Amino acid sequence: MRTLGAEMTSASAGGVEIRFPFHSSLTQQNNFVHAGAVTSILDSACGYAALSVAPEDHDVLTVEFKVNLLAPAVGDEFLARAHVKRAGKTLIVCAADAFAQRNGEEKLMATMLATIMVVKLKE
Amino acid sequence: MRTLGAEMTSASAGGVEIRFPFHSSLTQQNNFVHAGAVTSILDSACGYAALSVAPEDHDVLTVEFKVNLLAPAVGDEFLARAHVKRAGKTLIVCAADAFAQRNGEEKLMATMLATIMVVKLKE
Amino acid sequence: MRTLGAEMTSASAGGVEIRFPFHSSLTQQNNFVHAGAVTSILDSACGYAALSVAPEDHDVLTVEFKVNLLAPAVGDEFLARAHVKRAGKTLIVCAADAFAQRNGEEKLMATMLATIMVVKLKE
Amino acid sequence: MRTLGAEMTSASAGGVEIRFPFHSSLTQQNNFVHAGAVTSILDSACGYAALSVAPEDHDVLTVEFKVNLLAPAVGDEFLARAHVKRAGKTLIVCAADAFAQRNGEEKLMATMLATIMVVKLKE
Repeated sequence: MRTLGAEMTSASAGGVEIRFPFHSSLTQQNNFVHAGAVTSILDSACGYAALSVAPEDHDVLTVEFKVNLLAPAVGDEFLARAHVKRAGKTLIVCAADAFAQRNGEEKLMATMLATIMVVKLKE
Repeated sequence: MRTLGAEMTSASAGGVEIRFPFHSSLTQQNNFVHAGAVTSILDSACGYAALSVAPEDHDVLTVEFKVNLLAPAVGDEFLARAHVKRAGKTLIVCAADAFAQRNGEEKLMATMLATIMVVKLKE
Repeated sequence: MRTLGAEMTSASAGGVEIRFPFHSSLTQQNNFVHAGAVTSILDSACGYAALSVAPEDHDVLTVEFKVNLLAPAVGDEFLARAHVKRAGKTLIVCAADAFAQRNGEEKLMATMLATIMVVKLKE
Repeated sequence: MRTLGAEMTSASAGGVEIRFPFHSSLTQQNNFVHAGAVTSILDSACGYAALSVAPEDHDVLTVEFKVNLLAPAVGDEFLARAHVKRAGKTLIVCAADAFAQRNGEEKLMATMLATIMVVKLKE
Protein backbone atom coordinates (compact mmCIF):
# COMPACT_ATOMS: atom_id res chain seq x y z
CA MET A 1 0.00 0.00 0.00
CA ARG A 2 2.84 2.37 0.89
CA THR A 3 4.55 1.86 -2.46
CA LEU A 4 1.45 2.77 -4.41
CA GLY A 5 0.37 5.59 -2.06
CA ALA A 6 -3.03 4.01 -1.67
CA GLU A 7 -5.80 4.96 0.73
CA MET A 8 -8.71 2.75 1.75
CA THR A 9 -11.83 4.87 1.32
CA SER A 10 -14.52 2.43 2.36
CA ALA A 11 -14.72 -1.04 3.81
CA SER A 12 -17.31 -3.48 5.07
CA ALA A 13 -17.17 -7.19 5.77
CA GLY A 14 -16.35 -8.68 2.39
CA GLY A 15 -16.07 -5.46 0.37
CA VAL A 16 -13.47 -2.71 0.06
CA GLU A 17 -12.72 0.37 -2.03
CA ILE A 18 -9.16 1.63 -2.40
CA ARG A 19 -8.03 4.89 -4.05
CA PHE A 20 -4.62 5.58 -5.57
CA PRO A 21 -3.34 9.01 -6.65
CA PHE A 22 -2.05 9.41 -10.17
CA HIS A 23 1.30 7.66 -10.56
CA SER A 24 3.32 7.83 -13.77
CA SER A 25 4.17 4.11 -13.75
CA LEU A 26 0.48 3.36 -14.20
CA THR A 27 0.07 5.37 -17.34
CA GLN A 28 3.08 4.44 -19.41
CA GLN A 29 2.20 3.50 -22.93
CA ASN A 30 4.16 0.32 -22.54
CA ASN A 31 1.53 -2.30 -21.89
CA PHE A 32 3.98 -4.52 -19.97
CA VAL A 33 4.35 -1.99 -17.18
CA HIS A 34 0.62 -1.37 -17.21
CA ALA A 35 -0.12 -5.04 -16.53
CA GLY A 36 2.00 -5.15 -13.38
CA ALA A 37 0.71 -1.90 -11.92
CA VAL A 38 -2.93 -2.67 -12.55
CA THR A 39 -2.37 -6.13 -11.09
CA SER A 40 -0.92 -4.58 -7.90
CA ILE A 41 -3.98 -2.38 -7.48
CA LEU A 42 -6.44 -5.22 -8.05
CA ASP A 43 -4.45 -7.64 -5.89
CA SER A 44 -4.35 -5.09 -3.04
CA ALA A 45 -8.11 -4.65 -3.18
CA CYS A 46 -8.72 -8.42 -3.26
CA GLY A 47 -6.28 -8.93 -0.40
CA TYR A 48 -8.03 -6.38 1.81
CA ALA A 49 -11.45 -7.76 0.97
CA ALA A 50 -10.26 -11.25 1.91
CA LEU A 51 -8.66 -9.94 5.09
CA SER A 52 -11.97 -8.40 6.14
CA VAL A 53 -13.57 -11.86 6.37
CA ALA A 54 -10.55 -13.86 7.62
CA PRO A 55 -10.24 -14.83 11.31
CA GLU A 56 -8.42 -12.23 13.45
CA ASP A 57 -5.10 -14.02 13.95
CA HIS A 58 -4.72 -14.88 10.27
CA ASP A 59 -3.09 -13.30 7.23
CA VAL A 60 -3.91 -13.76 3.56
CA LEU A 61 -1.71 -14.88 0.68
CA THR A 62 -2.58 -14.64 -3.01
CA VAL A 63 -2.58 -18.07 -4.65
CA GLU A 64 -3.51 -17.06 -8.20
CA PHE A 65 -5.50 -14.56 -10.23
CA LYS A 66 -6.78 -13.82 -13.70
CA VAL A 67 -6.79 -10.27 -14.98
CA ASN A 68 -8.53 -8.88 -18.05
CA LEU A 69 -7.06 -5.56 -19.20
CA LEU A 70 -10.03 -3.61 -20.57
CA ALA A 71 -8.86 -0.03 -21.23
CA PRO A 72 -5.72 2.11 -20.86
CA ALA A 73 -5.07 3.62 -17.42
CA VAL A 74 -5.68 7.31 -18.04
CA GLY A 75 -6.97 9.49 -15.20
CA ASP A 76 -6.27 11.72 -12.20
CA GLU A 77 -6.93 8.97 -9.72
CA PHE A 78 -7.38 5.23 -9.77
CA LEU A 79 -9.65 3.15 -7.62
CA ALA A 80 -10.37 -0.51 -7.12
CA ARG A 81 -13.44 -2.16 -5.64
CA ALA A 82 -13.25 -5.76 -4.49
CA HIS A 83 -15.76 -8.11 -2.94
CA VAL A 84 -15.66 -11.65 -1.60
CA LYS A 85 -17.43 -14.23 -3.79
CA ARG A 86 -16.94 -17.06 -1.31
CA ALA A 87 -15.10 -17.34 1.99
CA GLY A 88 -14.05 -20.88 2.89
CA LYS A 89 -11.95 -22.01 5.81
CA THR A 90 -8.78 -22.30 3.70
CA LEU A 91 -9.52 -20.35 0.52
CA ILE A 92 -11.29 -17.07 -0.22
CA VAL A 93 -12.37 -16.16 -3.76
CA CYS A 94 -12.56 -12.44 -4.59
CA ALA A 95 -13.52 -10.35 -7.61
CA ALA A 96 -12.28 -6.80 -8.17
CA ASP A 97 -12.68 -4.00 -10.71
CA ALA A 98 -10.13 -1.22 -11.26
CA PHE A 99 -11.26 2.17 -12.53
CA ALA A 100 -9.53 5.30 -13.84
CA GLN A 101 -11.26 8.46 -12.70
CA ARG A 102 -11.15 11.73 -14.64
CA ASN A 103 -13.36 14.78 -14.21
CA GLY A 104 -15.62 12.80 -11.90
CA GLU A 105 -16.19 10.03 -14.42
CA GLU A 106 -15.11 6.45 -13.84
CA LYS A 107 -13.84 4.17 -16.57
CA LEU A 108 -13.37 0.45 -15.99
CA MET A 109 -9.76 -0.37 -16.89
CA ALA A 110 -9.33 -3.96 -15.64
CA THR A 111 -11.02 -6.76 -13.73
CA MET A 112 -9.63 -9.60 -11.57
CA LEU A 113 -10.87 -12.94 -10.26
CA ALA A 114 -8.54 -14.21 -7.52
CA THR A 115 -8.01 -17.13 -5.15
CA ILE A 116 -6.54 -16.20 -1.78
CA MET A 117 -5.32 -18.48 0.99
CA VAL A 118 -5.92 -17.93 4.70
CA VAL A 119 -2.74 -18.54 6.70
CA LYS A 120 -2.33 -18.56 10.47
CA LEU A 121 0.03 -15.84 11.72
CA LYS A 122 3.16 -17.17 13.38
CA GLU A 123 3.50 -16.09 17.01
CA MET B 1 11.89 -3.33 -19.98
CA ARG B 2 13.74 -0.15 -19.00
CA THR B 3 11.88 0.16 -15.72
CA LEU B 4 12.76 -3.35 -14.67
CA GLY B 5 16.33 -3.24 -16.00
CA ALA B 6 15.73 -6.38 -17.99
CA GLU B 7 17.97 -7.95 -20.61
CA MET B 8 16.88 -10.47 -23.23
CA THR B 9 19.37 -13.32 -23.08
CA SER B 10 18.02 -15.64 -25.72
CA ALA B 11 15.31 -15.58 -28.33
CA SER B 12 14.02 -17.73 -31.15
CA ALA B 13 10.78 -17.66 -33.10
CA GLY B 14 8.17 -18.30 -30.43
CA GLY B 15 10.44 -18.52 -27.40
CA VAL B 16 12.32 -15.99 -25.28
CA GLU B 17 14.34 -15.80 -22.08
CA ILE B 18 14.63 -12.53 -20.16
CA ARG B 19 16.90 -11.81 -17.16
CA PHE B 20 16.30 -9.17 -14.50
CA PRO B 21 18.85 -8.08 -11.89
CA PHE B 22 17.81 -8.17 -8.24
CA HIS B 23 15.36 -5.39 -7.50
CA SER B 24 14.08 -4.68 -4.00
CA SER B 25 10.48 -4.25 -5.12
CA LEU B 26 10.45 -7.87 -6.17
CA THR B 27 11.38 -9.27 -2.82
CA GLN B 28 9.24 -7.27 -0.44
CA GLN B 29 7.47 -9.44 2.04
CA ASN B 30 4.23 -7.77 1.13
CA ASN B 31 2.57 -10.20 -1.20
CA PHE B 32 0.64 -7.43 -2.97
CA VAL B 33 3.80 -5.86 -4.35
CA HIS B 34 5.14 -9.30 -5.25
CA ALA B 35 2.09 -10.02 -7.42
CA GLY B 36 2.54 -6.90 -9.55
CA ALA B 37 6.29 -7.26 -10.04
CA VAL B 38 6.13 -10.94 -10.93
CA THR B 39 3.27 -10.18 -13.31
CA SER B 40 5.41 -7.51 -15.05
CA ILE B 41 8.23 -10.00 -15.57
CA LEU B 42 5.94 -12.73 -16.91
CA ASP B 43 3.96 -10.30 -19.07
CA SER B 44 7.20 -8.92 -20.58
CA ALA B 45 8.35 -12.42 -21.48
CA CYS B 46 4.99 -13.34 -23.01
CA GLY B 47 4.89 -10.05 -24.92
CA TYR B 48 8.32 -10.63 -26.46
CA ALA B 49 7.50 -14.23 -27.32
CA ALA B 50 4.32 -13.07 -29.06
CA LEU B 51 6.20 -10.29 -30.85
CA SER B 52 8.67 -12.85 -32.23
CA VAL B 53 5.89 -14.53 -34.22
CA ALA B 54 3.78 -11.45 -35.10
CA PRO B 55 3.98 -9.88 -38.58
CA GLU B 56 6.65 -7.16 -38.89
CA ASP B 57 4.46 -4.07 -38.95
CA HIS B 58 2.41 -5.16 -35.94
CA ASP B 59 2.59 -4.63 -32.19
CA VAL B 60 1.16 -6.81 -29.41
CA LEU B 61 -1.25 -5.94 -26.62
CA THR B 62 -2.01 -8.10 -23.58
CA VAL B 63 -5.69 -9.00 -23.44
CA GLU B 64 -5.67 -11.10 -20.26
CA PHE B 65 -3.56 -13.47 -18.18
CA LYS B 66 -3.72 -15.88 -15.29
CA VAL B 67 -0.83 -16.06 -12.83
CA ASN B 68 -0.15 -18.70 -10.19
CA LEU B 69 2.25 -17.48 -7.49
CA LEU B 70 4.24 -20.56 -6.51
CA ALA B 71 7.09 -19.42 -4.25
CA PRO B 72 8.52 -16.18 -2.78
CA ALA B 73 10.86 -14.18 -5.02
CA VAL B 74 14.22 -14.67 -3.30
CA GLY B 75 17.39 -14.59 -5.39
CA ASP B 76 20.24 -12.61 -6.96
CA GLU B 77 18.63 -12.55 -10.34
CA PHE B 78 15.24 -13.32 -11.85
CA LEU B 79 14.50 -14.80 -15.20
CA ALA B 80 11.44 -15.61 -17.23
CA ARG B 81 11.03 -18.02 -20.11
CA ALA B 82 8.03 -17.75 -22.39
CA HIS B 83 6.87 -19.69 -25.40
CA VAL B 84 4.00 -19.40 -27.86
CA LYS B 85 1.31 -22.08 -27.45
CA ARG B 86 -0.64 -20.94 -30.51
CA ALA B 87 -0.23 -18.06 -32.91
CA GLY B 88 -3.45 -17.05 -34.66
CA LYS B 89 -4.02 -14.12 -36.98
CA THR B 90 -5.63 -11.99 -34.26
CA LEU B 91 -4.67 -13.69 -30.99
CA ILE B 92 -1.49 -15.31 -29.69
CA VAL B 93 -1.55 -17.56 -26.59
CA CYS B 94 1.66 -17.72 -24.56
CA ALA B 95 2.85 -19.55 -21.45
CA ALA B 96 5.69 -18.32 -19.24
CA ASP B 97 7.55 -19.38 -16.10
CA ALA B 98 9.42 -16.98 -13.80
CA PHE B 99 12.40 -18.21 -11.78
CA ALA B 100 14.49 -16.81 -8.95
CA GLN B 101 18.16 -17.70 -9.32
CA ARG B 102 20.54 -18.02 -6.37
CA ASN B 103 23.97 -19.65 -6.31
CA GLY B 104 23.35 -21.06 -9.76
CA GLU B 105 20.11 -22.77 -8.76
CA GLU B 106 16.75 -21.87 -10.27
CA LYS B 107 13.52 -21.91 -8.32
CA LEU B 108 10.15 -21.59 -10.07
CA MET B 109 8.34 -18.66 -8.45
CA ALA B 110 5.34 -18.10 -10.73
CA THR B 111 3.70 -19.20 -13.98
CA MET B 112 1.47 -17.37 -16.47
CA LEU B 113 -0.94 -18.31 -19.24
CA ALA B 114 -1.75 -15.25 -21.37
CA THR B 115 -3.82 -14.13 -24.36
CA ILE B 116 -2.21 -11.44 -26.50
CA MET B 117 -3.70 -9.47 -29.37
CA VAL B 118 -1.90 -8.61 -32.57
CA VAL B 119 -2.52 -4.97 -33.56
CA LYS B 120 -1.43 -3.19 -36.72
CA LEU B 121 0.98 -0.32 -36.06
CA LYS B 122 -0.40 3.07 -37.03
CA GLU B 123 1.70 4.84 -39.63
CA MET C 1 -28.51 -25.37 -25.18
CA ARG C 2 -30.45 -28.38 -26.45
CA THR C 3 -28.02 -30.83 -24.87
CA LEU C 4 -28.37 -29.29 -21.46
CA GLY C 5 -32.13 -28.68 -21.76
CA ALA C 6 -31.63 -25.05 -20.93
CA GLU C 7 -34.19 -22.24 -21.11
CA MET C 8 -33.41 -18.54 -21.24
CA THR C 9 -35.59 -16.89 -18.61
CA SER C 10 -34.54 -13.28 -18.95
CA ALA C 11 -32.38 -11.22 -21.22
CA SER C 12 -31.44 -7.62 -21.78
CA ALA C 13 -28.61 -6.00 -23.72
CA GLY C 14 -25.51 -7.28 -21.95
CA GLY C 15 -27.18 -9.50 -19.37
CA VAL C 16 -28.86 -12.92 -19.46
CA GLU C 17 -30.27 -15.54 -17.08
CA ILE C 18 -30.46 -19.18 -18.13
CA ARG C 19 -32.18 -22.03 -16.23
CA PHE C 20 -31.33 -25.71 -16.49
CA PRO C 21 -33.46 -28.54 -15.07
CA PHE C 22 -31.80 -31.03 -12.75
CA HIS C 23 -29.48 -33.28 -14.72
CA SER C 24 -27.63 -36.18 -13.14
CA SER C 25 -24.35 -35.41 -14.90
CA LEU C 26 -24.17 -32.15 -12.98
CA THR C 27 -24.38 -33.70 -9.56
CA GLN C 28 -22.02 -36.62 -9.78
CA GLN C 29 -19.63 -36.82 -6.92
CA ASN C 30 -16.77 -37.04 -9.34
CA ASN C 31 -15.35 -33.57 -9.42
CA PHE C 32 -13.99 -34.03 -12.96
CA VAL C 33 -17.45 -34.35 -14.42
CA HIS C 34 -18.64 -31.44 -12.29
CA ALA C 35 -15.99 -29.13 -13.76
CA GLY C 36 -17.07 -29.77 -17.36
CA ALA C 37 -20.80 -29.46 -16.73
CA VAL C 38 -20.54 -26.29 -14.68
CA THR C 39 -18.24 -24.86 -17.35
CA SER C 40 -20.85 -25.61 -20.04
CA ILE C 41 -23.52 -23.74 -18.07
CA LEU C 42 -21.31 -20.72 -17.40
CA ASP C 43 -19.96 -20.66 -20.95
CA SER C 44 -23.51 -20.77 -22.36
CA ALA C 45 -24.53 -17.82 -20.22
CA CYS C 46 -21.44 -15.80 -21.18
CA GLY C 47 -21.96 -16.67 -24.85
CA TYR C 48 -25.56 -15.43 -24.84
CA ALA C 49 -24.62 -12.28 -22.94
CA ALA C 50 -21.92 -11.55 -25.52
CA LEU C 51 -24.32 -12.30 -28.39
CA SER C 52 -26.79 -9.76 -26.99
CA VAL C 53 -24.29 -6.93 -27.61
CA ALA C 54 -22.64 -8.25 -30.82
CA PRO C 55 -23.58 -6.82 -34.23
CA GLU C 56 -26.49 -8.64 -35.92
CA ASP C 57 -24.59 -10.56 -38.61
CA HIS C 58 -21.95 -11.83 -36.17
CA ASP C 59 -21.48 -14.92 -34.03
CA VAL C 60 -19.40 -15.34 -30.87
CA LEU C 61 -16.58 -17.77 -30.08
CA THR C 62 -15.12 -18.43 -26.64
CA VAL C 63 -11.40 -17.63 -26.56
CA GLU C 64 -10.67 -18.49 -22.93
CA PHE C 65 -12.17 -18.53 -19.44
CA LYS C 66 -11.29 -18.97 -15.80
CA VAL C 67 -13.66 -20.85 -13.51
CA ASN C 68 -13.64 -21.00 -9.72
CA LEU C 69 -15.59 -23.99 -8.39
CA LEU C 70 -17.14 -22.74 -5.13
CA ALA C 71 -19.60 -25.39 -3.94
CA PRO C 72 -20.99 -28.78 -5.03
CA ALA C 73 -23.85 -28.73 -7.55
CA VAL C 74 -26.81 -29.91 -5.45
CA GLY C 75 -30.31 -28.69 -6.30
CA ASP C 76 -33.55 -29.12 -8.25
CA GLU C 77 -32.58 -26.59 -10.85
CA PHE C 78 -29.48 -24.72 -11.91
CA LEU C 79 -29.22 -21.21 -13.20
CA ALA C 80 -26.53 -18.95 -14.53
CA ARG C 81 -26.47 -15.18 -14.77
CA ALA C 82 -23.96 -13.48 -17.02
CA HIS C 83 -23.22 -9.88 -17.84
CA VAL C 84 -20.89 -8.06 -20.20
CA LYS C 85 -17.96 -6.31 -18.48
CA ARG C 86 -16.70 -4.72 -21.69
CA ALA C 87 -17.76 -4.98 -25.32
CA GLY C 88 -15.01 -4.16 -27.79
CA LYS C 89 -15.12 -4.43 -31.56
CA THR C 90 -13.21 -7.73 -31.59
CA LEU C 91 -13.40 -9.03 -28.01
CA ILE C 92 -16.16 -9.11 -25.38
CA VAL C 93 -15.36 -9.80 -21.71
CA CYS C 94 -18.12 -11.43 -19.66
CA ALA C 95 -18.57 -12.51 -16.04
CA ALA C 96 -21.05 -15.19 -14.95
CA ASP C 97 -22.22 -16.87 -11.76
CA ALA C 98 -23.82 -20.34 -11.62
CA PHE C 99 -26.28 -21.19 -8.85
CA ALA C 100 -27.93 -24.36 -7.59
CA GLN C 101 -31.51 -23.77 -6.52
CA ARG C 102 -33.29 -25.86 -3.89
CA ASN C 103 -36.52 -25.05 -2.06
CA GLY C 104 -36.42 -21.54 -3.45
CA GLU C 105 -32.92 -20.84 -2.13
CA GLU C 106 -29.97 -20.11 -4.40
CA LYS C 107 -26.46 -21.25 -3.66
CA LEU C 108 -23.50 -19.93 -5.67
CA MET C 109 -21.66 -22.97 -7.04
CA ALA C 110 -19.17 -21.46 -9.51
CA THR C 111 -18.08 -18.24 -11.17
CA MET C 112 -16.48 -17.50 -14.57
CA LEU C 113 -14.55 -14.65 -16.17
CA ALA C 114 -14.39 -15.15 -19.94
CA THR C 115 -13.00 -13.58 -23.13
CA ILE C 116 -15.18 -14.01 -26.20
CA MET C 117 -14.42 -13.15 -29.81
CA VAL C 118 -16.84 -11.57 -32.24
CA VAL C 119 -16.70 -13.30 -35.64
CA LYS C 120 -18.49 -12.31 -38.82
CA LEU C 121 -20.96 -14.93 -40.04
CA LYS C 122 -20.08 -16.45 -43.40
CA GLU C 123 -22.73 -15.88 -46.03
CA MET D 1 -13.39 -41.22 -16.46
CA ARG D 2 -16.21 -43.71 -17.05
CA THR D 3 -18.47 -41.08 -18.60
CA LEU D 4 -15.87 -40.05 -21.11
CA GLY D 5 -14.59 -43.57 -21.79
CA ALA D 6 -11.06 -42.52 -21.00
CA GLU D 7 -7.99 -44.70 -20.60
CA MET D 8 -4.78 -43.69 -18.86
CA THR D 9 -1.96 -44.59 -21.24
CA SER D 10 1.06 -43.46 -19.29
CA ALA D 11 1.80 -42.11 -15.85
CA SER D 12 4.75 -41.15 -13.73
CA ALA D 13 5.04 -39.12 -10.54
CA GLY D 14 3.74 -35.70 -11.57
CA GLY D 15 2.86 -36.49 -15.19
CA VAL D 16 0.03 -38.34 -16.91
CA GLU D 17 -1.34 -39.00 -20.38
CA ILE D 18 -4.99 -39.88 -20.89
CA ARG D 19 -6.65 -41.00 -24.13
CA PHE D 20 -10.33 -40.65 -25.02
CA PRO D 21 -12.04 -42.31 -27.98
CA PHE D 22 -13.97 -40.13 -30.39
CA HIS D 23 -17.19 -38.93 -28.77
CA SER D 24 -19.76 -36.87 -30.66
CA SER D 25 -20.30 -34.42 -27.80
CA LEU D 26 -16.72 -33.27 -28.22
CA THR D 27 -17.04 -32.32 -31.83
CA GLN D 28 -20.32 -30.48 -31.97
CA GLN D 29 -20.06 -27.23 -33.79
CA ASN D 30 -21.68 -25.49 -30.86
CA ASN D 31 -18.79 -23.94 -29.03
CA PHE D 32 -20.63 -24.05 -25.70
CA VAL D 33 -20.63 -27.85 -25.62
CA HIS D 34 -17.04 -27.91 -26.79
CA ALA D 35 -15.91 -25.80 -23.83
CA GLY D 36 -17.40 -28.18 -21.27
CA ALA D 37 -16.11 -31.37 -22.87
CA VAL D 38 -12.60 -30.08 -23.40
CA THR D 39 -12.61 -28.81 -19.83
CA SER D 40 -13.58 -32.30 -18.57
CA ILE D 41 -10.67 -33.87 -20.43
CA LEU D 42 -8.14 -31.32 -19.21
CA ASP D 43 -9.50 -31.37 -15.65
CA SER D 44 -9.28 -35.18 -15.59
CA ALA D 45 -5.65 -35.09 -16.68
CA CYS D 46 -4.78 -32.40 -14.12
CA GLY D 47 -6.61 -34.31 -11.39
CA TYR D 48 -4.68 -37.53 -12.09
CA ALA D 49 -1.37 -35.71 -12.27
CA ALA D 50 -2.10 -34.09 -8.89
CA LEU D 51 -3.20 -37.43 -7.44
CA SER D 52 0.13 -38.97 -8.48
CA VAL D 53 2.01 -36.65 -6.11
CA ALA D 54 -0.57 -36.42 -3.28
CA PRO D 55 -0.15 -38.44 -0.06
CA GLU D 56 -1.74 -41.92 -0.20
CA ASP D 57 -4.78 -41.34 2.03
CA HIS D 58 -5.74 -38.10 0.28
CA ASP D 59 -8.02 -37.12 -2.59
CA VAL D 60 -7.84 -34.08 -4.85
CA LEU D 61 -10.44 -31.39 -5.55
CA THR D 62 -10.27 -28.81 -8.33
CA VAL D 63 -10.31 -25.27 -6.93
CA GLU D 64 -10.10 -23.32 -10.19
CA PHE D 65 -8.72 -23.41 -13.72
CA LYS D 66 -8.16 -21.29 -16.79
CA VAL D 67 -8.68 -22.80 -20.22
CA ASN D 68 -7.63 -21.38 -23.59
CA LEU D 69 -9.55 -22.94 -26.48
CA LEU D 70 -7.05 -23.06 -29.35
CA ALA D 71 -8.59 -25.13 -32.15
CA PRO D 72 -11.78 -27.12 -32.90
CA ALA D 73 -11.90 -30.70 -31.58
CA VAL D 74 -11.69 -32.74 -34.78
CA GLY D 75 -10.09 -36.18 -34.68
CA ASP D 76 -10.41 -39.93 -34.17
CA GLU D 77 -9.09 -39.80 -30.67
CA PHE D 78 -8.36 -37.15 -28.06
CA LEU D 79 -5.58 -37.10 -25.56
CA ALA D 80 -4.49 -34.90 -22.70
CA ARG D 81 -1.08 -34.59 -21.07
CA ALA D 82 -0.76 -32.98 -17.68
CA HIS D 83 2.16 -32.28 -15.39
CA VAL D 84 2.58 -30.85 -11.93
CA LYS D 85 4.10 -27.34 -11.84
CA ARG D 86 4.30 -27.23 -8.04
CA ALA D 87 3.12 -29.59 -5.32
CA GLY D 88 2.53 -27.91 -1.96
CA LYS D 89 1.08 -29.42 1.17
CA THR D 90 -2.37 -27.94 0.55
CA LEU D 91 -2.38 -26.91 -3.11
CA ILE D 92 -1.04 -28.48 -6.29
CA VAL D 93 -0.69 -26.45 -9.50
CA CYS D 94 -0.94 -28.39 -12.78
CA ALA D 95 -0.72 -27.54 -16.48
CA ALA D 96 -2.31 -29.67 -19.20
CA ASP D 97 -2.62 -29.71 -22.98
CA ALA D 98 -5.43 -31.43 -24.90
CA PHE D 99 -4.82 -32.75 -28.41
CA ALA D 100 -7.01 -34.09 -31.21
CA GLN D 101 -5.36 -36.95 -33.07
CA ARG D 102 -6.09 -37.79 -36.70
CA ASN D 103 -4.09 -40.00 -39.04
CA GLY D 104 -1.30 -40.13 -36.49
CA GLU D 105 -0.97 -36.37 -36.26
CA GLU D 106 -1.64 -34.42 -33.08
CA LYS D 107 -3.21 -30.99 -33.01
CA LEU D 108 -3.25 -28.89 -29.84
CA MET D 109 -6.89 -27.98 -29.19
CA ALA D 110 -6.81 -26.45 -25.69
CA THR D 111 -4.58 -25.77 -22.69
CA MET D 112 -5.32 -25.51 -18.95
CA LEU D 113 -3.60 -24.07 -15.88
CA ALA D 114 -5.29 -25.37 -12.73
CA THR D 115 -5.15 -25.12 -8.93
CA ILE D 116 -6.05 -28.32 -7.09
CA MET D 117 -6.57 -28.87 -3.39
CA VAL D 118 -5.35 -31.88 -1.44
CA VAL D 119 -8.05 -33.17 0.91
CA LYS D 120 -7.78 -35.92 3.51
CA LEU D 121 -10.07 -38.87 2.78
CA LYS D 122 -12.75 -39.44 5.41
CA GLU D 123 -12.48 -42.83 7.07
